[in-house]
Amino acid sequence: MTDAPDLAAALIAENFSRDGGGVLHVGGLPLTDLAEEFGTPLFVYDAEVMRRTYRALRAALAGFAEIDYSVKANPNPAVIRVFHEEGAGAEIASGAEFAAALEAGVPPEKILFAGPGKGAADLDRVVAGGIGEIHLENREEILRVAAAAERHGVTVRVALRINPGAAAQGGAMRMGGKPSPFGFDEEEMEAAIDAVEAQGPLRLIGLHLFAGTQGLKAETLLGQWAYGLGLAARIAGRTGRPLETIDLGGGLGIPYFSGDAALDLATLRAGMPDLIATLRADPSLAGARVVLEPGRYLAGPAGLYVARVLAVKESRGSRFVITDGGMHHHLAASGNLGQIVKRDFPLAAVTETGGERAATAVVGPLCTPLDMLARAAPLPPLAEGDLVAVLQSGAYGLTASPTGFLSHPMPAELLVDGGAATVIRPSE
Amino acid sequence: MTDAPDLAAALIAENFSRDGGGVLHVGGLPLTDLAEEFGTPLFVYDAEVMRRTYRALRAALAGFAEIDYSVKANPNPAVIRVFHEEGAGAEIASGAEFAAALEAGVPPEKILFAGPGKGAADLDRVVAGGIGEIHLENREEILRVAAAAERHGVTVRVALRINPGAAAQGGAMRMGGKPSPFGFDEEEMEAAIDAVEAQGPLRLIGLHLFAGTQGLKAETLLGQWAYGLGLAARIAGRTGRPLETIDLGGGLGIPYFSGDAALDLATLRAGMPDLIATLRADPSLAGARVVLEPGRYLAGPAGLYVARVLAVKESRGSRFVITDGGMHHHLAASGNLGQIVKRDFPLAAVTETGGERAATAVVGPLCTPLDMLARAAPLPPLAEGDLVAVLQSGAYGLTASPTGFLSHPMPAELLVDGGAATVIRPSE
Repeated sequence: MTDAPDLAAALIAENFSRDGGGVLHVGGLPLTDLAEEFGTPLFVYDAEVMRRTYRALRAALAGFAEIDYSVKANPNPAVIRVFHEEGAGAEIASGAEFAAALEAGVPPEKILFAGPGKGAADLDRVVAGGIGEIHLENREEILRVAAAAERHGVTVRVALRINPGAAAQGGAMRMGGKPSPFGFDEEEMEAAIDAVEAQGPLRLIGLHLFAGTQGLKAETLLGQWAYGLGLAARIAGRTGRPLETIDLGGGLGIPYFSGDAALDLATLRAGMPDLIATLRADPSLAGARVVLEPGRYLAGPAGLYVARVLAVKESRGSRFVITDGGMHHHLAASGNLGQIVKRDFPLAAVTETGGERAATAVVGPLCTPLDMLARAAPLPPLAEGDLVAVLQSGAYGLTASPTGFLSHPMPAELLVDGGAATVIRPSE
Repeated sequence: MTDAPDLAAALIAENFSRDGGGVLHVGGLPLTDLAEEFGTPLFVYDAEVMRRTYRALRAALAGFAEIDYSVKANPNPAVIRVFHEEGAGAEIASGAEFAAALEAGVPPEKILFAGPGKGAADLDRVVAGGIGEIHLENREEILRVAAAAERHGVTVRVALRINPGAAAQGGAMRMGGKPSPFGFDEEEMEAAIDAVEAQGPLRLIGLHLFAGTQGLKAETLLGQWAYGLGLAARIAGRTGRPLETIDLGGGLGIPYFSGDAALDLATLRAGMPDLIATLRADPSLAGARVVLEPGRYLAGPAGLYVARVLAVKESRGSRFVITDGGMHHHLAASGNLGQIVKRDFPLAAVTETGGERAATAVVGPLCTPLDMLARAAPLPPLAEGDLVAVLQSGAYGLTASPTGFLSHPMPAELLVDGGAATVIRPSE
């Protein structure tokens, strides 16, 4: 048996609650009632948890960086709106994400477009829509964005995405220091700058550095950000103009597995004075807007994926709980979104009966052994009709999953806020 | 460098062709023209390849088994229709797959419903629709199907899915001989039979055995099928009635990776006389319809996923081709659908220029290092605007992929038949 339940219990204690009957509540509402009213499977997001997470990060970064919400983590416009109303901009990676951000009320000038493969149609859409900034990742893209700017008769603000050298490493999935499809290698940065400067309709105003993802070590992030400021100064040095934006990427992680320690915001905060001093000391950087673009960190902890038990069986000494939810809605929890070693996401019984726990495999309704939400979650006894909830499911959940696999209906998404639940995507 | 191109070239030679200019043709149509007319990314399926595959398998199984197409592999009704018109029934795993099979013209009595988590809504839908057979996988399901039958005032034909003992192993992903959420363990088969027999509205008429998936060894499959006949005889012995259907599962594999040898149909065919003799020798089995339910085997080889190059870059000694297609449309090719070791699907340049090949990483437009269609495909030089095609993409492609990830548009699906291409799912 793993000790995963400790993480699930800790996360519930941090962000949610249980009533006297052991029923898990989200934003004050019992999940049992929500599942009854809106059906299962179901994604439930707590707006107040999003705000609390945003504000805590904002406070830790105070005086140094602003926050753009990375829409790809959860592109539901109602989710984007929560962060927009807190003051966040938006980082998008496709034309449809641009539309979602606009729908959420984000003004186009507060939206930036990143991603390694931006097609002409998406570029036309965002340039016509007055996007704030486009990040350039390769030479073909320099010309493609310039062409789009010309087609629309505008100047487009662009930043260079740099694939950093080995000095700027960190995070669970490393993105720099080695060959990469993302951005321009640091060692060819000056040539890339010159190529952008040669394009009349482009105005090079910033740097984009994204050195890793799912980073849980504050020291590593601080080191990457300091490294980014050095790269930014080199861009300004080459163009001879002060930078306007410095995008230091996202990559702020959240604990998914037993033993993961949450990112320590106090350590981040303690690193701010040095970073701020570096900025202020360089006139080419002092006026720039520094931005981080977290997605997972902001949206992940606020979401739960709720499924109902269809059957419980013992097979050759193992206990299986078969639910109506599975990998078609939550690929990451099934261990099939990049995990090398499949470990269990935090998963809990919605109603904690206090019964004796046993290592339980929680599987979905698809006809494949891949459809497993937990391999050995220590769960109390469960029966047909009971509910289970996967925590840390607000980011890279529904939209990062193969929803058409076996053609089950799309689940509803609910946003709980102010003691009420709103359907923000209907079930099919 | 891998020797993956051999597999791609072999598959092209087997099922498709190149013209004098090196352009890949599907069903006689140049992929370059199809990409131009219908846009990219694009799935293209060749109906004639499906038919040829079906007929070859049918011939190998002649006198022993019929074929039900497993809809989950590719649920597009136009694809289901190709197999239906060849005489296949359909195996479905959800209410929506039932609807797709009906839309394709499959009569409900030729449809069977399998899967470990069948909910009441889906059961109502298929029972009301007159489905031919439902496979029971656990005790809760026995009661749930009986309740649905009672609600609709009908008798439902059911089969027992059995999780076989260790003697019936085989296939790349083993499904039997160990603890499993699928079906009833063989050692409790008699108790399960009695539980079904106790339900008035259920008529136990068959066995369902599914011992593995992606099986490439004919001897292993033959062994599993022989094992299945033994289990079938035990069911008949317990009920005292001859069996009407014996579903021996799917699990017929196709080569995806360099070094994979195709399933040898000649070996399968050579195994038929023994299996047929076993059937004929047992009066309780002699009248049963034996069925196999392949999906991947029938649909996989007929499909290609076509993407257009957006950029080509060298990064620290590695060559990256960035395309508009990626894991959001083809999760399996990215190595994120259950593969422990990520190996490259067969991938080819649509136009073979004869230029010198180099190991090339082919990546998609998503902002994640997971979005990689090939790690080291030996490809000729490519430039912006060129096309690449992933082979073996007719099964577990689009509908098994996280199409909402980064909110790119849905690609079109084309069926090529009789020298013409039909849009069978429009792009968004």
